[in-house]
Amino acid sequence: MKQRQDCQALDAADALRPLREHFTLPAGVIYLDGNSLGVLPAATEARVQQVIRQEWGTDLIKSWNTAGWMELPRRIGNKIAWLVGAGEDEVTVADSTSLNLYKVLAAALRIAGEDRPERRVILSERSNFPTDLYIAESLAAQQGYTLKLFDHVDELPALINAELAVLMLTEVNYRTGYKHDMAGVTQLAHAAGALVIWDLAHSAGAVPVDLKGADADFAIGCGYKYLNGGPGAPAFVWAHPRHVDRFWQPLSGWLGHAAPFQFTPNYTPAPGIGRYICGTPAILSTAALECGVDVFLASEPMGGMPALRKKSIALTELFIELVEARCGLKAQGAFSDLGVRLASPRDAARRGSQVCLSLAAPLHEAGYAVIQALIARGVIGDFRAGDPSRLDEVPHILRFGFTPLYLGFTEVFDAVEHLRQVLASGEWKQSQFNQKAAVT
Amino acid sequence: MKQRQDCQALDAADALRPLREHFTLPAGVIYLDGNSLGVLPAATEARVQQVIRQEWGTDLIKSWNTAGWMELPRRIGNKIAWLVGAGEDEVTVADSTSLNLYKVLAAALRIAGEDRPERRVILSERSNFPTDLYIAESLAAQQGYTLKLFDHVDELPALINAELAVLMLTEVNYRTGYKHDMAGVTQLAHAAGALVIWDLAHSAGAVPVDLKGADADFAIGCGYKYLNGGPGAPAFVWAHPRHVDRFWQPLSGWLGHAAPFQFTPNYTPAPGIGRYICGTPAILSTAALECGVDVFLASEPMGGMPALRKKSIALTELFIELVEARCGLKAQGAFSDLGVRLASPRDAARRGSQVCLSLAAPLHEAGYAVIQALIARGVIGDFRAGDPSRLDEVPHILRFGFTPLYLGFTEVFDAVEHLRQVLASGEWKQSQFNQKAAVT
Repeated sequence: MKQRQDCQALDAADALRPLREHFTLPAGVIYLDGNSLGVLPAATEARVQQVIRQEWGTDLIKSWNTAGWMELPRRIGNKIAWLVGAGEDEVTVADSTSLNLYKVLAAALRIAGEDRPERRVILSERSNFPTDLYIAESLAAQQGYTLKLFDHVDELPALINAELAVLMLTEVNYRTGYKHDMAGVTQLAHAAGALVIWDLAHSAGAVPVDLKGADADFAIGCGYKYLNGGPGAPAFVWAHPRHVDRFWQPLSGWLGHAAPFQFTPNYTPAPGIGRYICGTPAILSTAALECGVDVFLASEPMGGMPALRKKSIALTELFIELVEARCGLKAQGAFSDLGVRLASPRDAARRGSQVCLSLAAPLHEAGYAVIQALIARGVIGDFRAGDPSRLDEVPHILRFGFTPLYLGFTEVFDAVEHLRQVLASGEWKQSQFNQKAAVT
Repeated sequence: MKQRQDCQALDAADALRPLREHFTLPAGVIYLDGNSLGVLPAATEARVQQVIRQEWGTDLIKSWNTAGWMELPRRIGNKIAWLVGAGEDEVTVADSTSLNLYKVLAAALRIAGEDRPERRVILSERSNFPTDLYIAESLAAQQGYTLKLFDHVDELPALINAELAVLMLTEVNYRTGYKHDMAGVTQLAHAAGALVIWDLAHSAGAVPVDLKGADADFAIGCGYKYLNGGPGAPAFVWAHPRHVDRFWQPLSGWLGHAAPFQFTPNYTPAPGIGRYICGTPAILSTAALECGVDVFLASEPMGGMPALRKKSIALTELFIELVEARCGLKAQGAFSDLGVRLASPRDAARRGSQVCLSLAAPLHEAGYAVIQALIARGVIGDFRAGDPSRLDEVPHILRFGFTPLYLGFTEVFDAVEHLRQVLASGEWKQSQFNQKAAVT
């Protein structure tokens, strides 16, 4: 078992360690929640101040041209494209993940409806992030499709069949961190004649993604998690070049028009991914996103995403090993004295950049309080509620994200020690940790 | 005719003059483009810095609760509700104007489709801002409606008939500043059994709006024009309480769910306007919007929107009178020696807070260069292209917005003098004013 000084040695030897200087991290905090809200890049405050003071305050309307506001979503899109294996000019920043999913799912259903109108099923995962399911539920009802949800990945091969129009998956599950085999699943779906949409909310900036290599059809992703774009940062969207010009997407706002400043009454979509832009982009939030994405570009000389993935795996492996050794966690499915269970895949290849734990009965309801007690100690993870009617299958989750851009091995060691103490001391039982906020 | 010293006296006597201190205005600029991008409120930079440095950078994920991020769209919505005559908890900030129009038009079509399924027409104005028409075109095609467009307001009564499902109008026209009679038109449409959506992009913060008094059905509006929310600031949306809970809107993202943090796979819309929220709000841009809206609250002791409207009319009347007197502009339809024509209503009651001019042949193509020459002199207006195939009906427009929150009468005087000089000297013919940027 690794000791604290071993972890210090790992930090000292970590070639990616200088990337930490690209962030402003709060003192006394071990932040394991970059999968929910990424931390503040060091460049963001000054950049947004520049946008506010100079570009907006002084240069005003002309900044749409002179400050490049109009090109901003596409410029950042190109930087993200590099991260996710898409081509130049194939990605744009726009709106939110939910809205981008509406666009690509609507487009995919139009393509499927034209090419294979007899197929009436949209397939996704019951444990997918709910917004994906809500958007799919809306479009399924609107267009007469059936939304089918599977519970276990081993059901997938049987469900990828001649009924299937569109398979819509989040590559890395927000609850468990389970990472689908993007290339393999896409190949399976294509062989069965279906289209595949990938939600990269927990992938972009977390794991290497190769959309073109996997031959995916559409993808969307989030700006405020691993990309460190700031709270509610705009999202991104990609459509494979073979699909992108085939139809409009339905959210046909003026900045997706081929010539928005001709102010023509009829919509003519812009060529390429530009048609996936809808209204005027929120420039302050978009400019902040670029600062987050730029850190990944700065990581390129140090090996970029493959090097980050290697460190991410080392961090999550270390966390699991330490929890096993220090909190009594054994193999998946086995419960420790303290009731800790690994809720993420033990196989690093099937795991994103997060590790989730659950607590066994009678403690499983205590997950919220355990997270609150950890937060009081400066270890920030989060709690994701399970399904109260079947907690054995969908337990409450203690979720810990590991962002290799700024997280060190010693922090992982210290986080596990805090977790051990919280569980062993029973301090999570204190009343202040058991008062649920309206939202978490 | 008023002289410059008369305008200085008007400024000295202007009870709203102190509101100017709520803004950071660039030196040497007369900004007549607040109808495109509002100026920077004095409070915004510090507020956004606080969001970035403290709420995001230091407090991180817990700011969703402790900093009120989760409530922010509704809190600002309530402030906007006061401006537009909506009730408490009936307005929310969300997404963009285009996206909010998609939501309310989809909802209106569902209501119309259930109550009056034989009606298959959506009616709007050909000169409406194009994004409204593009969204309507999309939904009309998707749901089998016909989008009809009228050219002149006097066609309206005949088109409000038993075929009409939804009438969708922008109260103040973005090109001409023509202001519809919201109460009268809504009454006419309701009497004919149709629903009415009002786009308040050029109304909110510009003219008093009384949505409930007019008995409107739905409304949307823009955050970055007269509300001074910053480039691409989020928009707002209102649905009358009689409609709001009746259906989902189709952009059913997770933050429109009744209980988003229960993470249930099925969508249950939040009660009330909360269901018109889709994904996670862009917090930086949303926080900036609140600073803009707050200036209107600060105007309340000075008379609020009625007093602002009175000043707005005084400013636009002064501009028109001075252009008439100094640039040879006579009555609407009459052309001066310099080819200037009033393209906005002469009747202040039918005019928003802007005045548009057009140039007669052979100068009508020169509008862009005239605006560029004015900008070079520090007078910022904008150019909106007409319809090249019928410039007599839809001419190129020189557009000047008059924001009573910060604009003074002397600035109006000086702006007209600059315009006179640009036209009289022919300096607009200089080549640097005739090189069109990619976008304007």
